[in-house]
Amino acid sequence: MIKIGIIGGTGYTGVELLRLLAAHPQADLRVITSRGEAGRPVADLFPNLRGHVKLAFTEPNIKTLAGCDVVFSATPNGVAMTHARELLKAGVKFIDLAADFRLKDPAAWEQWYGVPHACPELLAEAVYGLPEVNREKIKKARLIANPGCYPTAVQLGFLPLLENGLVEAQHLIADAKSGVSGAGRKAEVNTLYAEAADSIKAYGVAGHRHWPEICQGLEAVLGQSVGLTFVPHLTPMIRGIHATLYARLTKPGADLQAVFEKRYAKEPFVDVMPAGSHPETRSVRISNVCRLAVHQPQGADTVVVLSVIDNLVKGAAGQAVQNMNLLFGLNERNGLDQAGVLP
Amino acid sequence: MIKIGIIGGTGYTGVELLRLLAAHPQADLRVITSRGEAGRPVADLFPNLRGHVKLAFTEPNIKTLAGCDVVFSATPNGVAMTHARELLKAGVKFIDLAADFRLKDPAAWEQWYGVPHACPELLAEAVYGLPEVNREKIKKARLIANPGCYPTAVQLGFLPLLENGLVEAQHLIADAKSGVSGAGRKAEVNTLYAEAADSIKAYGVAGHRHWPEICQGLEAVLGQSVGLTFVPHLTPMIRGIHATLYARLTKPGADLQAVFEKRYAKEPFVDVMPAGSHPETRSVRISNVCRLAVHQPQGADTVVVLSVIDNLVKGAAGQAVQNMNLLFGLNERNGLDQAGVLP
Amino acid sequence: MIKIGIIGGTGYTGVELLRLLAAHPQADLRVITSRGEAGRPVADLFPNLRGHVKLAFTEPNIKTLAGCDVVFSATPNGVAMTHARELLKAGVKFIDLAADFRLKDPAAWEQWYGVPHACPELLAEAVYGLPEVNREKIKKARLIANPGCYPTAVQLGFLPLLENGLVEAQHLIADAKSGVSGAGRKAEVNTLYAEAADSIKAYGVAGHRHWPEICQGLEAVLGQSVGLTFVPHLTPMIRGIHATLYARLTKPGADLQAVFEKRYAKEPFVDVMPAGSHPETRSVRISNVCRLAVHQPQGADTVVVLSVIDNLVKGAAGQAVQNMNLLFGLNERNGLDQAGVLP
Amino acid sequence: MIKIGIIGGTGYTGVELLRLLAAHPQADLRVITSRGEAGRPVADLFPNLRGHVKLAFTEPNIKTLAGCDVVFSATPNGVAMTHARELLKAGVKFIDLAADFRLKDPAAWEQWYGVPHACPELLAEAVYGLPEVNREKIKKARLIANPGCYPTAVQLGFLPLLENGLVEAQHLIADAKSGVSGAGRKAEVNTLYAEAADSIKAYGVAGHRHWPEICQGLEAVLGQSVGLTFVPHLTPMIRGIHATLYARLTKPGADLQAVFEKRYAKEPFVDVMPAGSHPETRSVRISNVCRLAVHQPQGADTVVVLSVIDNLVKGAAGQAVQNMNLLFGLNERNGLDQAGVLP
Repeated sequence: MIKIGIIGGTGYTGVELLRLLAAHPQADLRVITSRGEAGRPVADLFPNLRGHVKLAFTEPNIKTLAGCDVVFSATPNGVAMTHARELLKAGVKFIDLAADFRLKDPAAWEQWYGVPHACPELLAEAVYGLPEVNREKIKKARLIANPGCYPTAVQLGFLPLLENGLVEAQHLIADAKSGVSGAGRKAEVNTLYAEAADSIKAYGVAGHRHWPEICQGLEAVLGQSVGLTFVPHLTPMIRGIHATLYARLTKPGADLQAVFEKRYAKEPFVDVMPAGSHPETRSVRISNVCRLAVHQPQGADTVVVLSVIDNLVKGAAGQAVQNMNLLFGLNERNGLDQAGVLP
Repeated sequence: MIKIGIIGGTGYTGVELLRLLAAHPQADLRVITSRGEAGRPVADLFPNLRGHVKLAFTEPNIKTLAGCDVVFSATPNGVAMTHARELLKAGVKFIDLAADFRLKDPAAWEQWYGVPHACPELLAEAVYGLPEVNREKIKKARLIANPGCYPTAVQLGFLPLLENGLVEAQHLIADAKSGVSGAGRKAEVNTLYAEAADSIKAYGVAGHRHWPEICQGLEAVLGQSVGLTFVPHLTPMIRGIHATLYARLTKPGADLQAVFEKRYAKEPFVDVMPAGSHPETRSVRISNVCRLAVHQPQGADTVVVLSVIDNLVKGAAGQAVQNMNLLFGLNERNGLDQAGVLP
Repeated sequence: MIKIGIIGGTGYTGVELLRLLAAHPQADLRVITSRGEAGRPVADLFPNLRGHVKLAFTEPNIKTLAGCDVVFSATPNGVAMTHARELLKAGVKFIDLAADFRLKDPAAWEQWYGVPHACPELLAEAVYGLPEVNREKIKKARLIANPGCYPTAVQLGFLPLLENGLVEAQHLIADAKSGVSGAGRKAEVNTLYAEAADSIKAYGVAGHRHWPEICQGLEAVLGQSVGLTFVPHLTPMIRGIHATLYARLTKPGADLQAVFEKRYAKEPFVDVMPAGSHPETRSVRISNVCRLAVHQPQGADTVVVLSVIDNLVKGAAGQAVQNMNLLFGLNERNGLDQAGVLP
Repeated sequence: MIKIGIIGGTGYTGVELLRLLAAHPQADLRVITSRGEAGRPVADLFPNLRGHVKLAFTEPNIKTLAGCDVVFSATPNGVAMTHARELLKAGVKFIDLAADFRLKDPAAWEQWYGVPHACPELLAEAVYGLPEVNREKIKKARLIANPGCYPTAVQLGFLPLLENGLVEAQHLIADAKSGVSGAGRKAEVNTLYAEAADSIKAYGVAGHRHWPEICQGLEAVLGQSVGLTFVPHLTPMIRGIHATLYARLTKPGADLQAVFEKRYAKEPFVDVMPAGSHPETRSVRISNVCRLAVHQPQGADTVVVLSVIDNLVKGAAGQAVQNMNLLFGLNERNGLDQAGVLP
């Protein structure tokens, strides 16, 4: 059994991580910390976990956490980087579900997140936890930067095209629609039910924090710079991301369906649907799968990729568990084999 | 492994049954029939099951079904009764998720469902599959009438009060709110998204088919007739039933919390929440649990019980699997131990 | 033209009041105050009002407000009572959309709202602004206590029964379902989209602030005390209240449909639907109408009344405008004649 | 007063048209036909119209319709073309809200709608009813082809760019999100609440009927062919279209905000928001306004236009009333001056 600690865990990523780990055959959940909720049973805050999680939240304590094999950090951005050095020193594997270790360049981190990075020396070591790209590195890592939700959906959709040099990389477009849980469990007016229901809007068109993360990931694969227009939309649903990707084909005759199927043939959590399909976000609700379809409308030179994930699973907690499985040499599917829920 | 057949299975009860059985450690899904979809892979109709269910729908065929250990019927009302006799004769256990075997009185069935009953001789033998009442009978049954969704939520809420003679049984009130999936996967105008979203309405106030079923169940426990006012409401959510129950206390000083906790202390799928709680339907989403809270507002003589279930799980497919577990002597929790999903 | 001021106005009641007054033929909107948003154009905060409202929010200033004919207070509870005395002294009519002047008993106010009342001497004078009960008093009032949303829906449903002595007044039950906008435009976790969508729950079963208001209103009509069990439910819709009312008939043979139709025959904003109807909340969306249906299921002795309103219109801003029309001798329908919006 | 007839009118476009016309100061609604609902009062089918529309549906009858000044056809595609010739001959103005007269080329119509056109000789005469392009022609027309919902949102967003030669017209991208009411009031499984709620999906990527309509409209303005990739998405909301438009700038230094503001300065129903804005669909709910924002993310060479409308108002019934106002020399705003409804 793997001894597990969670820092934070009162947000949506946290409750999802708890739900997944509670059903994971090798997970031994030892400690979960929260300053604000210390002393309160987890199942009191999240009644869905009654009978599944017996722990209570405790004050953060490095000693207790240091006794774990792995610690997940499910805190707001900027917290994990204050714990990482100490936990790594204690020999604990560390998986950060926030953004602290995603960008390799500390200056970019400071630009997009507004504060200097607290342990820039760890950025080079941190492995970006997208198993479809970095599986072997993840297996040997100490420190995992779990990818953002949009970046997961967008990168998995563009990868086969870029790896095979099929599109013009300077003019990629990602039009992404996210459920409201992506904004987190924070008291804010603009994500109230009465604000976000029965309406859709774009946001952050001038610049969103996931833009440099996606660019960095695509550039790492391509080996050169990319041009990306990224427009996220707040969509009236609880979970789910639907990324609709557009690129101009440079080799219009390629068999795109075959390219995608080949690329992901052995991936346990990427499902390339048959030609002509339109994946729904609900088909991956509570599932760790990214479901993809590729189209070339009217045979013209624009390729359209449809990519759906559950933002809290493959876009957050599920991918973190997948990374844990890799870190500890477990079957990658352990604890993650639930089908999507429909309706 | 238990060899399983499903008749029907293109509706919401069907897809949920498939999802649960696909993850059940003793389930060997052998055949699933549908006249309308024969030849089509299940996972083509329900893409959430891609990678989980490899079967295709087939034409109904009694011989094939007769080779199973148990057959679930997930068809519209009135179909199961045309298959039951033959399958039972073949030695197959039969669990009907529709209403065909719920009412003991064939005249009542005809009155509420509009057609004569096709095998009235089986009604006495059929066991009403509410394990919290009939566990021992279920274990020995051949034919299970799986309860309706509203009847499950309402009966589990009223049982402790009636069994202990605490309320006036002639004036029970059940105000129930159901998600739209309760209406099934049928093309109808009044359950379109644009009709049912962002609005709530009562329906069937003059008389709903679940009314005689609830009365029969409560009367069986009480040993005398009950008076029930039952008002269902179509609520803008996909899944979930919230039954708000009202009754006048005849013994106002009773410790209602203790009565409820004692009644369900050993039940694996009934969770009595702490005093003062307000269960949310989402706390049982995809879970087989019925979560209850009991209140006595302002210390007056009206008791209020709040009862929530997932209409497709404890209110349908999950309860059917629970009954299957009992029928075959398995651990009652097998395949049903998922926590609710929140958010 | 009537010169109008609004105190507060950054909440949902405020934006709805602005929308209605912007289209009201006799309304001259002069000033709208908000400490937090002073200087900001209204249409910047509420883009739906672009082209309809040219005002900006200003700091509250009694002198400016005193130049108006009528001032609406659309602030949180406890603010209006700090302005009322001064504005009335200045000869301004005052309509409070919060709870400050609803309860006649200052001790009850303090008990339910947690602070002593700031001007208890005005409570006797304040007229409870339910036109269907107090029309003549409203016409002559200086100070109007605009009713709560639940109290409007519940009282309009019970009135015909109580006025005609048809039910047992000691055991009334009101099971009410409200859209999430009823909780206001406040940053709170439990009304986030990801918390409140796709789920329903009861709340405040032990005691809700609208309970004493409803009791007081019904008792005023009946001339004696009533017993009420009131259970509100947070429902996944933006607007709308559906109150399902239950009472035991003391005169079972009465023609309830006729009683309701007669009671409301001349009311411009109460619509008694034909026998057997099930009103939907969406049928009154953005409309000032309360739509009612009365049922006597299975001819038993329990009457069921279904009452729907838009909580922000007849339950708040619309009723306030109706009261303004009465105060100034205008046609009661002015500015309020919009049909409901469906779908 | 203008004598008005409506053919069809049992769908969402119909009920919205009725709601708008019931409040229109010059509208005299004379007849509304429906084969399926003949004899039934309109307000029985659409209870929101109780007290606002007294008509009942009648069997279609050309003589009765011929007595009107204008007839709206709110039927499924392919019906209007069977009535148009006769009504025009009788001197009636004819506004078709379906697609029958939108495409100029009868071969294109047959290709996309599957049947030969019934009166191809009228296609040249029919005026495409987008007032922002064809205002003068509309004023003199007999026959108006009211634009589709997607085409309205997409064209209004692209027009300023194309008219000013600012973008590469061969590679336009329109990623559009529509509420479910866009699919109409038809009993179909895929638009059931339990199918369409809490999920988003693209559809018709290979080819949607609005694609040739948009291309035709843009080409008419540009005077040459355009290349368009159009991906519509079914979005879990009742009303609203959000079109996110992408194009590559050929003159990167242009002041796009100024171009948009100038283009629509005098338009009563197009609102260019301040630079940096993100319009929400709810800001135009029940309003006839198209609200636009233009962005140039990171100063790169891709322009992003955000365009929102209410699909049933500016995308259907409201635009039809706007066209009627133009046809009869009325103030274009008459009956259409409602603000959006928020929340």
